[in-house]
Amino acid sequence: MSLRQHKIAVIAGDGIGIEVTAAALNVLKAVEARLGTFRLVFDEFDYGSARYKATGAYAPEGWLDHLATSDAILFGAVGDPDVPDHISLWELILPMRQRFQQYVNVRPSSVLPGIAPHATAAAVAGLNWVFVRENTEGEYSGQGGRTHVGSTLEVATDVAVFTRGGVERCMRYAFEVARSRERKLLTVVTKSNAQRYGLVLWDEVAASVAMDFPDVKWDKMLVDAMTVRMVQKPHSLDTIVATNLHGDILTDLAAALSGSIGIAHSSSLDPTRANPSMFEPVHGAAFDIMGRNIANPVAAMFSAAEMLRWIGEEEAAVLVERAATQSICGGQVTCDLGGKLSTVEVTRVVCQMVERL
Amino acid sequence: MSLRQHKIAVIAGDGIGIEVTAAALNVLKAVEARLGTFRLVFDEFDYGSARYKATGAYAPEGWLDHLATSDAILFGAVGDPDVPDHISLWELILPMRQRFQQYVNVRPSSVLPGIAPHATAAAVAGLNWVFVRENTEGEYSGQGGRTHVGSTLEVATDVAVFTRGGVERCMRYAFEVARSRERKLLTVVTKSNAQRYGLVLWDEVAASVAMDFPDVKWDKMLVDAMTVRMVQKPHSLDTIVATNLHGDILTDLAAALSGSIGIAHSSSLDPTRANPSMFEPVHGAAFDIMGRNIANPVAAMFSAAEMLRWIGEEEAAVLVERAATQSICGGQVTCDLGGKLSTVEVTRVVCQMVERL
Ligand SMILES: CC(C)[C@H](C(=O)O)[C@@H](O)C(=O)O
Ligand SMILES: CC(C)[C@H](C(=O)O)[C@@H](O)C(=O)O
Repeated sequence: MSLRQHKIAVIAGDGIGIEVTAAALNVLKAVEARLGTFRLVFDEFDYGSARYKATGAYAPEGWLDHLATSDAILFGAVGDPDVPDHISLWELILPMRQRFQQYVNVRPSSVLPGIAPHATAAAVAGLNWVFVRENTEGEYSGQGGRTHVGSTLEVATDVAVFTRGGVERCMRYAFEVARSRERKLLTVVTKSNAQRYGLVLWDEVAASVAMDFPDVKWDKMLVDAMTVRMVQKPHSLDTIVATNLHGDILTDLAAALSGSIGIAHSSSLDPTRANPSMFEPVHGAAFDIMGRNIANPVAAMFSAAEMLRWIGEEEAAVLVERAATQSICGGQVTCDLGGKLSTVEVTRVVCQMVERL
Repeated sequence: MSLRQHKIAVIAGDGIGIEVTAAALNVLKAVEARLGTFRLVFDEFDYGSARYKATGAYAPEGWLDHLATSDAILFGAVGDPDVPDHISLWELILPMRQRFQQYVNVRPSSVLPGIAPHATAAAVAGLNWVFVRENTEGEYSGQGGRTHVGSTLEVATDVAVFTRGGVERCMRYAFEVARSRERKLLTVVTKSNAQRYGLVLWDEVAASVAMDFPDVKWDKMLVDAMTVRMVQKPHSLDTIVATNLHGDILTDLAAALSGSIGIAHSSSLDPTRANPSMFEPVHGAAFDIMGRNIANPVAAMFSAAEMLRWIGEEEAAVLVERAATQSICGGQVTCDLGGKLSTVEVTRVVCQMVERL
């Protein structure tokens, strides 16, 4: 019998991205060996800030075409104290999201059983949200510029660009996610009171797409009031859709409220499957803790599990998720969750569980 | 002896704005009577959504010129379920902030002694922040538009406009606030990784203004990571400066983390004093509870106190703040803080305290 084969592009990137991606690869290899039903072919790329500092470019000419041939992309983190963020990100992660039309960024947040004692005081028991963040346009369209640079006359602009098609495909995806979940409840985040063009279009598209989903209950929340609701009435929320920037902010808050940013993962999806989708932790390169073998690898493992699910390996995905969740329930965790284990030790524990489960 | 006299424009606006502004006026009258050292001349305006629905305009021709002659503006809230928010706000509150060059919006957040038992689980003891929000430009500049409206080709843009002068005056104010506080600690919120023009200017201005404040420790935080820090390391923060939209979102979160949005107040200041400044609760018109005599009037009272301070009546300001704080400590509060009193009853309690303190 010939094995199902999947070509996975791996970009570990910078900082703790390197450590947690190595951990995720180990877990992927463990689950591949354990099940023996598929093969993962890893293509590892050294794109990142070290390469930039050595060669002047984050990635070689034609890198996006190269990545386009993979079945999925596993990403670590990017960012470097020596490189302005707006360079590092516009060289690597934002072009991927745009070029590969990864128009939704899906970020589930839930408080894992067993995490409560280790998590922040603010962690809310039973919280169970899925955020769908628009991922290719809006405030991240990259348009804008600076005039009279450095002079007192200087003006700088960032243009948030919303297209009807871009908003609609994201909104439709969000309604579908809401429909697939038990509560069938969607909250559309907006700020159309202040942002009176793009966000008004956003509201209009929400209302029109909603007509195709009569079984989904939906409401609208201003992004500012949304933070209050997340803190004060977390159980009133289920599926949430937001623009690129609003989603960026709210999903970090969600990660904090669900106990640790060290376990939050994120999928940048092209639901049409015309292009590879990308799977990454919500956290960044975290230079303050890099190289110390203390980064929490669980977000990267959950990202890898979500990738397995996306490429059709549901059984493997479930195994990885169960193993990582059990290590947390058992208190075998890194210091951000109040534990004493290193990155490598947590990885070993999870790999062993994958082998035995 | 002739009394100091202050001309106060009062715009109660919509929804619970009307109820809480009435409460604040009662407290102002009580403190005026109690001290007898100054006189407040109130100019009450019916600007708001009811007027719009009746006449087609939120305010009569020339209203801004009219307000310009006042010493301060006390504002309630605006917004109406029958009027799209982008109309109501761009007709009333946003033009005031811009025309009167109220370029900083100052929002203190602290957990009042005595509030803990009534507040949300997330309320953080000892939290004590001051937010300085840019209030006249950035994401709220109002520029942008829609092309191909309603067609599949539609594109809508919102242009965030940052001027060097606009950023600098706000940043300088924030450094001054930080300097005036015990910890001398400023966090500059940014998102220059994604918004690579205006927010890069923002960062550059922060670095250059900082040179004039060697005694202030400052750091930078990305807006998304900032939400995590507010939840997980609240005591690491003191003074915070943010753009118009970032500040809008983060101050609502701050209000939630400090126990209740019903006590958070906001000052839109023109520090040059060339124009009147405006004092308002952070909360909105809240139609869901309007007319039920349950809205928390304390945010409006704190706004009134801050207004008294701004016009030079420090003694009166302190009296109002002490009275409102004592009503909270004594549990004489509205239902949002777990109490049983109505808006009118809380107001009566605070007025009596003002008389006796
Ligand atoms: C690294 C940064 C550009 C990115 C974003 O803002 O989208 C990150 O915060 C995220 O949420 O994935
Ligand atoms: C009402 C609205 C326009 C306003 C804002 O976004 O500034 C409000 O949320 C605030 O924070 O004062």
